[in-house]
Amino acid sequence: MIKITVWNEFINERVEEKIKAVYPEGIHNCIAGFLGEEQDFCLRTATLQQEECGLSDDVLENTDVLIWWAHVGHYEVPDELVRKIQDRVLRGMGIIILHSGHYSKIFKSLMGTSCRLLWREDDRERIWCCNPNHPIAKDVPAQFELPNEEMYGEFFDIPTPDELVFMGWFTGGEVFRSGCLWNRGLGKVFYFQPGHEAYPIYHNENIQTIIKNSIRYINPIKIINEIDCPQAIRLEV
Amino acid sequence: MIKITVWNEFINERVEEKIKAVYPEGIHNCIAGFLGEEQDFCLRTATLQQEECGLSDDVLENTDVLIWWAHVGHYEVPDELVRKIQDRVLRGMGIIILHSGHYSKIFKSLMGTSCRLLWREDDRERIWCCNPNHPIAKDVPAQFELPNEEMYGEFFDIPTPDELVFMGWFTGGEVFRSGCLWNRGLGKVFYFQPGHEAYPIYHNENIQTIIKNSIRYINPIKIINEIDCPQAIRLEV
Amino acid sequence: MIKITVWNEFINERVEEKIKAVYPEGIHNCIAGFLGEEQDFCLRTATLQQEECGLSDDVLENTDVLIWWAHVGHYEVPDELVRKIQDRVLRGMGIIILHSGHYSKIFKSLMGTSCRLLWREDDRERIWCCNPNHPIAKDVPAQFELPNEEMYGEFFDIPTPDELVFMGWFTGGEVFRSGCLWNRGLGKVFYFQPGHEAYPIYHNENIQTIIKNSIRYINPIKIINEIDCPQAIRLEV
Amino acid sequence: MIKITVWNEFINERVEEKIKAVYPEGIHNCIAGFLGEEQDFCLRTATLQQEECGLSDDVLENTDVLIWWAHVGHYEVPDELVRKIQDRVLRGMGIIILHSGHYSKIFKSLMGTSCRLLWREDDRERIWCCNPNHPIAKDVPAQFELPNEEMYGEFFDIPTPDELVFMGWFTGGEVFRSGCLWNRGLGKVFYFQPGHEAYPIYHNENIQTIIKNSIRYINPIKIINEIDCPQAIRLEV
Repeated sequence: MIKITVWNEFINERVEEKIKAVYPEGIHNCIAGFLGEEQDFCLRTATLQQEECGLSDDVLENTDVLIWWAHVGHYEVPDELVRKIQDRVLRGMGIIILHSGHYSKIFKSLMGTSCRLLWREDDRERIWCCNPNHPIAKDVPAQFELPNEEMYGEFFDIPTPDELVFMGWFTGGEVFRSGCLWNRGLGKVFYFQPGHEAYPIYHNENIQTIIKNSIRYINPIKIINEIDCPQAIRLEV
Repeated sequence: MIKITVWNEFINERVEEKIKAVYPEGIHNCIAGFLGEEQDFCLRTATLQQEECGLSDDVLENTDVLIWWAHVGHYEVPDELVRKIQDRVLRGMGIIILHSGHYSKIFKSLMGTSCRLLWREDDRERIWCCNPNHPIAKDVPAQFELPNEEMYGEFFDIPTPDELVFMGWFTGGEVFRSGCLWNRGLGKVFYFQPGHEAYPIYHNENIQTIIKNSIRYINPIKIINEIDCPQAIRLEV
Repeated sequence: MIKITVWNEFINERVEEKIKAVYPEGIHNCIAGFLGEEQDFCLRTATLQQEECGLSDDVLENTDVLIWWAHVGHYEVPDELVRKIQDRVLRGMGIIILHSGHYSKIFKSLMGTSCRLLWREDDRERIWCCNPNHPIAKDVPAQFELPNEEMYGEFFDIPTPDELVFMGWFTGGEVFRSGCLWNRGLGKVFYFQPGHEAYPIYHNENIQTIIKNSIRYINPIKIINEIDCPQAIRLEV
Repeated sequence: MIKITVWNEFINERVEEKIKAVYPEGIHNCIAGFLGEEQDFCLRTATLQQEECGLSDDVLENTDVLIWWAHVGHYEVPDELVRKIQDRVLRGMGIIILHSGHYSKIFKSLMGTSCRLLWREDDRERIWCCNPNHPIAKDVPAQFELPNEEMYGEFFDIPTPDELVFMGWFTGGEVFRSGCLWNRGLGKVFYFQPGHEAYPIYHNENIQTIIKNSIRYINPIKIINEIDCPQAIRLEV
């Protein structure tokens, strides 16, 4: 059983009618909804508005994989919470950063880079797989289209991904490294670019498959309790 | 002084009027021409039609960087010559594989993969840089267009590049890892996708800059004489 | 059920009493023996002495993961068989190259490098894990000792591993990248250095755990029938 | 001309007689001393005790490559200064992190990991090169010994290096990834493990060669003024 927490800042879906129309229950509940069909997943949601942003120590310590959607509220997430999330990733927890989460404090802390990119609203995207036997690409076609998506383009200021799984093509002329994996400590980080709040991206079946696959791929073998830097006992050699 | 050999199968430019119109002296002479302006380059050309394909032991042993253009003549290059070129790369020589050279024996031998890809004639390409401070991208804009180019698309069956410098966007909807570097033994391999024979790609100033930069980047510090697998003397420990 | 073929050249164990004492049934049967305890493994062995080296098309096409042990017989494996094995790896099959298999034709073909290294008999090794949450390192201690092992030392002429899992330390003063993974086409390659025929390395419990883990890690999601390089139909864009 | 700033916390060399005996002018002046022989280097030193830690905006903006030695004073470096250094690396500046700098705020910020490791005083190290044609390994032997060095061992909690150049072997039985490179934004980071303050490591000729080589390798082509995340104008396509 994989313990998953779907975190969402949950701002636009509450205040903009257009966004509410796409995600009436919030992006987090949409994601938790399609994940809930899986027998091996155990789900919880959390939002910025909740006490401790919904991520108390107890919740975090009971999360194997954390999913992160955020956009306009990055700076409302306390630094101390970011530090705790990063610590748990380094101890083994998997984390999936979606779309505009590229500019979240937690993603930037894990990457060490600015995570800047090019962007433009109102485009169309085609997702290509450049690693077709990767577990995250299982049951995903060689390419598929998202009729509406915000454009995210290179140069994307990230460390070289440990694994590049998907590349994005945009009608407007841009390309992007859209599905990237990194190891950080004992944990794994998956960044997946699609997911602008104004479009029903998380209703797309291929997107749902990729998110399900990525949860299973980054689900940790183990999560340790503490990170230390021990003085080593001299081995018998 | 970097000793460069520009190798070209030199077939289409001799037999097809349309191609001859673009490269009347052959692709090799076009490339040697713009490289010849550089003070630190020392140039030589070689073609499939010459004795020993123009790559005698003496020529190879006096080459620091080998540039390879080929398309329909891959199977006319003798296996023994391919073995010698690979051996020299492993001993330190740099090699630049252009465009349809993706299916050459030497590239496939160095990669260990099939090097297959998607392709389609008559498209338009935009080259994006995803590694903007890389020496190969020096003086190259963030993106530039090739009004006519053959489409090469993913999945490109290559090992994960050690360095990914350029990505290609095509009007027809495809993306491609267009500028890739690998270390092989003591040598470096640069694959650069643009260069269909029917279009004046090698007349493009950005393409010329990239090829010049890549020569300097993969120019070896040293080339050794022999590869061995020695029994080690026990160190004093 | 993972279909595994354990291939062994089976030379030293037949002709040298000292080796026969360690592996009376041959290295392949020792490996097949401890793998046979696993419920999800389906095993077969094959040796150089058999018709078609024990690797007929039918056997190969029914192998998900191929294990390769060889040392003095590398040149007796026909090139055409090597080509078939490489093709199957590129179509998805996993391959585990053990110890002196670093100099096999199949490993060199998949790497594109010379695969040379330093070596010396009669040493002691300590294996360290530098990727502790990797599936291949599951249930393996942070380090463990092999009281007797041949020394393999750097410089090991391999492409940069996609994943480096283990590093070896030798009493004599050398270090080695001992557990390395690469993607090649749709398949995965795991090189694991321990396994000199004169010592009971494959009786070691940690070694057995690593081999079992690696089989599950490189077991393909799918194996395709054919590698092609298709002309792409123009997408509707 | 490469503008280099050698930063040192300069604590142990002032307060411990044993350390002062090794580095009477401080580690920074020892390093600046041997670097000063090079015609293309322009040098400056800075220490924790100076105003703004010796790294005013003016100094930072006139630094191409920053060298960082620190151990017990990590927490005395202000967060705001760390943020400025990281920003300048992402804009192009090269940074060399020496030895115990693995636990500095700036290294951890750039890596995104804990940077923990094993350690033990009083050991002997042998440095091996696993990337012999790398510019940083120029004129460095295949291996060399440091008769006295603190042991740093795996697991070293760092992101997979973009380039692994050196590996360390210790008498006590440990191994370490001792020379590692990463790209971060437009800048490059080189971590080099040797350099315990109690031993004359920076007097060693090979160590000096490696530091000189690494400065030239990570010297930026350009440093940009500002990092932005611009809305893209729609291209003509």
